[in-house]
Amino acid sequence: MKALVERIRAEGTHIGKGIIKVDGFLNHQIDPVLTTGMGEAFVAAFAGAGVTNITKVVTAEVSGIAPAVATAQVLGVPMIYARKHRPITMQEGEYVAQATSPTKGGSVELIISPEYLGEGDRVLLIDDFLASGITIEALVKLIRQSGATLCGIGCVIEKVYAGGRDHLASINVPVVTLAQVDLADGKMVVFD
Amino acid sequence: MKALVERIRAEGTHIGKGIIKVDGFLNHQIDPVLTTGMGEAFVAAFAGAGVTNITKVVTAEVSGIAPAVATAQVLGVPMIYARKHRPITMQEGEYVAQATSPTKGGSVELIISPEYLGEGDRVLLIDDFLASGITIEALVKLIRQSGATLCGIGCVIEKVYAGGRDHLASINVPVVTLAQVDLADGKMVVFD
Repeated sequence: MKALVERIRAEGTHIGKGIIKVDGFLNHQIDPVLTTGMGEAFVAAFAGAGVTNITKVVTAEVSGIAPAVATAQVLGVPMIYARKHRPITMQEGEYVAQATSPTKGGSVELIISPEYLGEGDRVLLIDDFLASGITIEALVKLIRQSGATLCGIGCVIEKVYAGGRDHLASINVPVVTLAQVDLADGKMVVFD
Repeated sequence: MKALVERIRAEGTHIGKGIIKVDGFLNHQIDPVLTTGMGEAFVAAFAGAGVTNITKVVTAEVSGIAPAVATAQVLGVPMIYARKHRPITMQEGEYVAQATSPTKGGSVELIISPEYLGEGDRVLLIDDFLASGITIEALVKLIRQSGATLCGIGCVIEKVYAGGRDHLASINVPVVTLAQVDLADGKMVVFD
């Protein structure tokens, strides 16, 4: 996605330890035009990969929400964001999976209510980063617990050096990323 | 907003203690058409109240993000979501305010980076619920710390019985809510 690659080149910074700062348009401030473009780019790429008849978009709070909303808007299907804390409003029997964050440390639970995802659903999984793939893997577990069919995985930015794509290979669905970032002598290289 | 009022009447439930469950379209699953409609309704209502030349939409993670994205899309301006944990990518000198959640208990910090909000910005504050007004008040403090001008406050659902509107009266900006919920003998009444 050209506009995204240009934006990362202009604003993104490698602050060390493989952490990419893109707070100006993905993790703190959101650019609405760029975000809508992400939704359109995901839908076009998955259509090109033969992924059709999606009924739900699934992401994790917090930073997955904006690109997942945009994708859901383009598809015209509901989006579900997995919660990190069980809300008191949630029906019992929830799907739960653990994810350990390599950048933030510690383990978080990801939780989805059985009310909104189940057999018959065809799911696109959308998130902000594909790094190690651990968060994505936890979301895949939730989707499988529900009996829904995972049809594709889309992440806005892929950290090539973090190896997530290899980690997800056994899941055997199309993995789409809109920009790829690698490190060469600690310097950020961006491509698509 | 008629579609929202109908959806709350059809799906919303009062689960006790003033807590309204609307997880099917606001706090866990998002309806993209309804969410886009929220953005359009906010922008129309604020335009009608003479609020113009907005440069930023501000919300708090997590459940404010979807309606705030939709509002930012309609206005074509960036949206900033206040973080509840300081990300390691955030520049120092951040704006911080405390908010105590009456429904969830405990106090959370809301944090905005000085990189993305400052003097010259004209802000619409968007959130999912107007209840006691405590979260909104914390966001107002952040906006004022930045030197930006708060121009209006928009919340998707107003819990009339929680008294937030009176609490915010002294802020002296238009307060727009798209649906109002009250309780009569513990039963939910929805209007707009």
